[in-house]
Amino acid sequence: MAGGKRLRPLLCVTGWYAAAGQVPVPEPVVRVAAALELFHAFCLIHDDVMDNSPTRRGRPTVHRTLADRHPPDCCTLQTARKFGTGAAILIGDLALTWSDELVHTAGLTPGQLAMLLPLLDVMRTEVMYGQYLDLAATGHPTTDLDHALTIIRYKTAKYTIERPVHIGAALAGGTTALAEALTAYALPLGEAFQLRDDLLGVYGDIQITGKSPLDDLRDGKHTVLLAIALRAAAPHQAETLERLLGRPDLIETQAGEIRSILTATGARAQVEEMINLRCEHVKDLLNHADLIHPCALPALWHFANAAARRSA
Amino acid sequence: MAGGKRLRPLLCVTGWYAAAGQVPVPEPVVRVAAALELFHAFCLIHDDVMDNSPTRRGRPTVHRTLADRHPPDCCTLQTARKFGTGAAILIGDLALTWSDELVHTAGLTPGQLAMLLPLLDVMRTEVMYGQYLDLAATGHPTTDLDHALTIIRYKTAKYTIERPVHIGAALAGGTTALAEALTAYALPLGEAFQLRDDLLGVYGDIQITGKSPLDDLRDGKHTVLLAIALRAAAPHQAETLERLLGRPDLIETQAGEIRSILTATGARAQVEEMINLRCEHVKDLLNHADLIHPCALPALWHFANAAARRSA
Repeated sequence: MAGGKRLRPLLCVTGWYAAAGQVPVPEPVVRVAAALELFHAFCLIHDDVMDNSPTRRGRPTVHRTLADRHPPDCCTLQTARKFGTGAAILIGDLALTWSDELVHTAGLTPGQLAMLLPLLDVMRTEVMYGQYLDLAATGHPTTDLDHALTIIRYKTAKYTIERPVHIGAALAGGTTALAEALTAYALPLGEAFQLRDDLLGVYGDIQITGKSPLDDLRDGKHTVLLAIALRAAAPHQAETLERLLGRPDLIETQAGEIRSILTATGARAQVEEMINLRCEHVKDLLNHADLIHPCALPALWHFANAAARRSA
Repeated sequence: MAGGKRLRPLLCVTGWYAAAGQVPVPEPVVRVAAALELFHAFCLIHDDVMDNSPTRRGRPTVHRTLADRHPPDCCTLQTARKFGTGAAILIGDLALTWSDELVHTAGLTPGQLAMLLPLLDVMRTEVMYGQYLDLAATGHPTTDLDHALTIIRYKTAKYTIERPVHIGAALAGGTTALAEALTAYALPLGEAFQLRDDLLGVYGDIQITGKSPLDDLRDGKHTVLLAIALRAAAPHQAETLERLLGRPDLIETQAGEIRSILTATGARAQVEEMINLRCEHVKDLLNHADLIHPCALPALWHFANAAARRSA
């Protein structure tokens, strides 16, 4: 009911099917899948604090909600914001801790737990590394396309797709070769997913995405879309982009100027093309997937199609 | 070299001795003890962000250091602060993750790991609960002494003393009865420890504590010391406390006014008395400790004496 696509739990269960075949998903695996969602709640709550985002999934973010609830009769707006931020950091920390607790009490065998914990550790370090790269690059987008792709790889491709399927497969005792086959599928899919997200972040409909199409531009996020645009821009276009990107007071007509340049430079079309290439590659892999159990294929096809086309 | 008392690792090892007796501490136990210190680094980094503290252990805090390093030529002070805060949240998250990793790779037996993980989960939830109570009460100290003691119990007594000794004892296969004996010792000791901390937070020497004796007063922390003072204060004293506590621009002469009232109302002496009572009770327990292995007693005595007398 709270919104969100539950992508990581779904991919975890899909990874389990990829290794185990057509057998009911055991309760402990479902609990680990749920733990991934709770871990993701932690990421989103802290991410929203770091970006100072006002909304998430069409509703006020945790730090904003808590700031608004702070008794206004006894404190200033600044005090209320400080409380909202502090409490949201703690609630994020609790979500992480409870995600751990869900794993520890999932009813896994000692062997499964010993296999799972290092995978979770790697997943966590990777996403934090990706978030750090993203944060450090925010405010000054450049022409550095490789760096934008590295951010995508850690922040999304590995965290959202690769590690959840790995985790599901590992719980079913999947082989290293299967994990590698899943990686070959997961990384381009994750990149396509984030490239689509970047397009939606600029061109999306707030009614559908739940997120203002001004936020990324106001933050000056270093995305593949902007790196391509800055590379292809004529001097006057580059000047406009550099003047407007990262302005916290950016208004809709200025966002419209940026969007026109992204379209005129061909950056938007090129990102669409990058998404298509990756989704076609992924579908090609799925057509020849011999290590992945066939019963996982419909779900994997679904994710590949969804990444190419989704609007939220 | 980075400062700090390494209290939690020391107590973890002491808990191990309390259960195991006079045998060398195995490497995995040392690694778990180190993981407690890394977890504590996570707590401190996030705590300093939440309180917006400028210094910790006599040096600039993580978020301040990172804000200062942010290239000043390309951004405003506000952008640098936002980066410092965001990066410090992520570095705290990483410290928590790496603390987990240290536990997972400590070389524990599956039985030890299964015993340890729920204890760590409880410890983490408790400290976050305590931090939340502390945060929610900050800015408006009241006469509610019980609430101030509840905050102390979760934030410090359980987190700093009880759980670390429990963890060490559990790793050595200690009984539930031993855990209870350690709790009886740990909770009053932890309360004494935090009461001393509260006194040092107001009367301490920044050269020794590494922390300005204005910070707690500027934050308007809801401490036992202030709850007692507000209870005992004459109307004009209460008026002064309410006017000055929680002012972010509090200056030293105003802090001096507050300290005079804390002394004049007897609050300072009463907190010293509370510390003494707890330390005497703890020493009494140690004189009749039959479940705790004698080789752990010298360390436990040391902690009891240190809590009563320490200046940093």
